[in-house]
Amino acid sequence: MITQKWRRICDAIEQDIANGTLQPGDRLPTEPELAARYEAGRHSVRRAIAELAREGSVSVEQGRGTFVESGPMLEYAIGTRTRLHRNLNSQGVEVTGELLGAEITAASERVARALGLLPGAPVQKSRRITYADTLPINMGTGYRCAKRFPDFVTRRDLIGSVTETYKSYGITDYLRAETTLHSRLARPEEAKLLRQHPQTPVIVVRAIDQSLDGTALSFSEVIWSALRVKFTMTNERD
Amino acid sequence: MITQKWRRICDAIEQDIANGTLQPGDRLPTEPELAARYEAGRHSVRRAIAELAREGSVSVEQGRGTFVESGPMLEYAIGTRTRLHRNLNSQGVEVTGELLGAEITAASERVARALGLLPGAPVQKSRRITYADTLPINMGTGYRCAKRFPDFVTRRDLIGSVTETYKSYGITDYLRAETTLHSRLARPEEAKLLRQHPQTPVIVVRAIDQSLDGTALSFSEVIWSALRVKFTMTNERD
Repeated sequence: MITQKWRRICDAIEQDIANGTLQPGDRLPTEPELAARYEAGRHSVRRAIAELAREGSVSVEQGRGTFVESGPMLEYAIGTRTRLHRNLNSQGVEVTGELLGAEITAASERVARALGLLPGAPVQKSRRITYADTLPINMGTGYRCAKRFPDFVTRRDLIGSVTETYKSYGITDYLRAETTLHSRLARPEEAKLLRQHPQTPVIVVRAIDQSLDGTALSFSEVIWSALRVKFTMTNERD
Repeated sequence: MITQKWRRICDAIEQDIANGTLQPGDRLPTEPELAARYEAGRHSVRRAIAELAREGSVSVEQGRGTFVESGPMLEYAIGTRTRLHRNLNSQGVEVTGELLGAEITAASERVARALGLLPGAPVQKSRRITYADTLPINMGTGYRCAKRFPDFVTRRDLIGSVTETYKSYGITDYLRAETTLHSRLARPEEAKLLRQHPQTPVIVVRAIDQSLDGTALSFSEVIWSALRVKFTMTNERD
């Protein structure tokens, strides 16, 4: 089957949006520029833009040009109970994860402080990447006291969810105690793993989860693709 | 007075860090590269790096190189009561703001929804830039119902703080109802106003504040320099 020209233009522009070459708010090249770039007629270009507008990827502003929409960014709610799967599954994406590596290591000063351990204490460090459907959305490093949770990583891989893994240790509930968040450009390895353009940002989220008695359970540093997620915080009194 | 060579190297590198040419986590060029770039001897370069390390701007990791530290990023707490001045003044910086413009305009769909108005209803829109000491940290746009707060901008400029301005309308307390946050590269105008390198990110924070009875008071979209701030969210039960 031959793919129609306008469809190929659509696909090319959508790919540029997905990998961050085109950013939300960017103006698309003009029709003549797009026609030249894709060796297509103005009619195909117009049809491609109409289709992108229909899909919500771009918006045409009369007299100003065509702009990349913020797109269907996933929303990730940060609150007292912050749960990866519950957060994202409700948005119609399937969340899967992959373990990139795990080791027992000595707690750095930051990790020790977060977990209430002494610097140098043994901690289990694990690195994971998370996908929404087939798109990588974050890569993270988690730290837990190696004495308390000697086989957390193995259990989690077996059980599938953090919440359920804690239950297997008798911890029936846990709270997000503290979250900090900043943004910077992706480092080359991150851009590659997250499949985004290197000159695009990531959001770094550091978090401490604790059990109801106030004991720190984990410290994590998760690098989110800034192209694919926005964070929401809601006043939970509502 | 002649500035010593090592001091000039320090200043140049610090400026690169401040404007984002060098990002947190970046590896500094090697000593020979720095010596060539600044037409200086290795001794001056070493002294400059030692000084930067002493000041906490870089950290020297034996065998790996010298890396830019995350630096003294301001912390901005997002919670039930999110107050600009209280947030930042405690960190030893003086917060000042400047009105960039104000107008009465018709509420867009997003603004109307946030404020509980009908699209097209008159809203007062104001644009401000905020400084921590002399460094711009954010530029924002705020929207309020023009009927309820016809002269908010004038009063705020006179009174100085949002909290006190609300009090002048008889609103003694207000809550942050909802915050969303994402990151993208700075647009050229933003990079210029925030005095940061164009290829560096900003964090876009959209927020709705409401009075205790649940009425929306304001909708704001604030563009923060990602180089200068990190956000913290703490479980307020603690």
